[in-house]
Amino acid sequence: MAPTLIAGVGATDFGEHAGRTGRELFAEARSSALEESAVPPSDVDALYYGNYMGETAENQSHQAPLMAAGIGTTGLEATRVENACASGGYAVADGVRAIESGQADVVLVGGLERMTNLETGETTAALARAADELHEGRPGLTFPGAYALLADAYMDRFGGTREDLAHVAVKNHANAATNPNAQFREEIDVEDVLEAPAVADPLGLLDACPISDGAAAAVLVSRAYAERNELEAAVAITGSGRGTETLSLQERVDMTRTRAAESAAQAAYDRAGVDPGDVDVAEVHDCFTIAEVLALEALGLYEPGEAITAAREGETTADGEVPVNLSGGLKAKGHPVGATGVGQLVELTKLLAGTHPNADAVADAEVGVTHNAGGTVATAAVHVLEVQS
Amino acid sequence: MAPTLIAGVGATDFGEHAGRTGRELFAEARSSALEESAVPPSDVDALYYGNYMGETAENQSHQAPLMAAGIGTTGLEATRVENACASGGYAVADGVRAIESGQADVVLVGGLERMTNLETGETTAALARAADELHEGRPGLTFPGAYALLADAYMDRFGGTREDLAHVAVKNHANAATNPNAQFREEIDVEDVLEAPAVADPLGLLDACPISDGAAAAVLVSRAYAERNELEAAVAITGSGRGTETLSLQERVDMTRTRAAESAAQAAYDRAGVDPGDVDVAEVHDCFTIAEVLALEALGLYEPGEAITAAREGETTADGEVPVNLSGGLKAKGHPVGATGVGQLVELTKLLAGTHPNADAVADAEVGVTHNAGGTVATAAVHVLEVQS
Repeated sequence: MAPTLIAGVGATDFGEHAGRTGRELFAEARSSALEESAVPPSDVDALYYGNYMGETAENQSHQAPLMAAGIGTTGLEATRVENACASGGYAVADGVRAIESGQADVVLVGGLERMTNLETGETTAALARAADELHEGRPGLTFPGAYALLADAYMDRFGGTREDLAHVAVKNHANAATNPNAQFREEIDVEDVLEAPAVADPLGLLDACPISDGAAAAVLVSRAYAERNELEAAVAITGSGRGTETLSLQERVDMTRTRAAESAAQAAYDRAGVDPGDVDVAEVHDCFTIAEVLALEALGLYEPGEAITAAREGETTADGEVPVNLSGGLKAKGHPVGATGVGQLVELTKLLAGTHPNADAVADAEVGVTHNAGGTVATAAVHVLEVQS
Repeated sequence: MAPTLIAGVGATDFGEHAGRTGRELFAEARSSALEESAVPPSDVDALYYGNYMGETAENQSHQAPLMAAGIGTTGLEATRVENACASGGYAVADGVRAIESGQADVVLVGGLERMTNLETGETTAALARAADELHEGRPGLTFPGAYALLADAYMDRFGGTREDLAHVAVKNHANAATNPNAQFREEIDVEDVLEAPAVADPLGLLDACPISDGAAAAVLVSRAYAERNELEAAVAITGSGRGTETLSLQERVDMTRTRAAESAAQAAYDRAGVDPGDVDVAEVHDCFTIAEVLALEALGLYEPGEAITAAREGETTADGEVPVNLSGGLKAKGHPVGATGVGQLVELTKLLAGTHPNADAVADAEVGVTHNAGGTVATAAVHVLEVQS
């Protein structure tokens, strides 16, 4: 299977965009990606678009044709994908599939979320709809509580402390400090994290990602199209995988592992023909500090029970062997839900292409991986990216 | 490209299902399709699932993993597609693509909507979110009004009367009368339609489809999988197409044509290698009587301006040359939004396989087409089905 080339990427800053509509934000990301790609908009065959809560935040369902309209083509197909916080990663996966099926030469993948225009309580309620309404939502479990349960289960089995988790937040803030697109660009220290107000024990406010607005987009093209049109593409998606687990935590056999992400990673590695040992850099779904720990183990970068030490020992910092979330991650770059999975692709592409402000940390990197999760990792999408020689 | 075989189909009755949850309804459809297919649930590689308003009706986003959980496989991928009333048809199209890409051998495609648990005003408001919030929703346009504008534009250009449109409703009720899965199983006459309360002039209450609950599912398999497992499949999807147009009516060049459906039909016919003249039977998106007229023209079964006479002249009745909506259509079979596009596939498969109660009308049919539309046809998905010899 010929790889799917990434011809261009674009995104808005992640953060608060009061007064800008979703269509404005997405248009900025889309235009930026198309411009970088040098692909004429009329060549776009399809849009796969991730959005989580447009019904609630903008009173707007059926957003795919709205976001496609600006591309300037009428034959285009446009599909909205909603898989909670993995909506963007699943949109990318469907875009790759459209190209690999031979049915499309050029696919725009994108995502958007507007969240800050709602009151925080409304946003929390909207996010809670991504959990199992019957078994979790109705009894009152929201995501900080759900991830606190995952942290409890993990530390109960494998050990580890709140301080260990705090190092994840400290690292990701440090990375975001030099990323101008990030929402939080100030460094923090372990004391800050430990002294922050508790959200759901053992997690505090600085263990959690923020509420964000933002949009991201990427232009994917087939190798044949790139050759015909003499396009340059420094980076390709060589593996794409998805997985699923029960939506509710109570139905899971083991709360210390995220099997949806394990399945997704295995599928992506198999398609790319790489092993976890080949991975040089990763962007993973750190909606809470514990989520990054679980992600690194699901990706096979660490054995079960061992990733808790990775941030503390500095193994995943910019200077570490496999830098993780050089963008700042969801934790500090921000988490506009439907855009996040595509945003990871945007950031990792720039890191591998050498155009990211933090790219010096991975100057020799050849293989990178993105990991995007929905809910308490009931859904996951993993992509392997490789530098094209 | 080898066709995608339909190994099994299943659906709930469409209508009011008070007191049954979405997961219960979908489980019924899913189990029924899997049972008919004889495919072991553990062989399912992927679920593509259409749902429009789960956030509003059930306080439940992120439904794909919830609906996948009952299949009994953990490696499965599951993706929710939301393209308004075309969510189901787009889910089918993504399922076909997954198989044609070679990445999946068995895909469950499905859709669900629960609507009757809300007050009618809430449902109308939720449906209105599928229109352009800025240009249509906020000024107060809901879908009966939008389709009335389409009817006005059509009749202004091509002529035709409310009585002509009434024949569409009369025909589809007559077809539904012998379909035990239909919501409205009583025949009506032209006078009933003309004397029904006005909804949005020129459309009355009996020009409109009902509000419905329901679920539908189909098991799609690759030919290679079917041969390895000695599966029988009487019907295949030989062409799949999607199209898009501007979400708002005011941005369109011509309100008497539905270009998203024209694009989708052309793509589906091209892939199948058939022409409109080859079509023996069709299930089309008749959310309002005018919508069936527009659909028949977009599918190329009639020239622009000519389909208004089709129902009046009896050309599309069960006894006509190309029967349309033998199931009863959205109009009388019901329209549980996210399930509708998959429900069309279920009905047409049974019609072509000879297992539908109305199949005698198309005993010699070899080629059928489904047409599923979102909003005022801002999105459309068209599928060509062919009997396998």
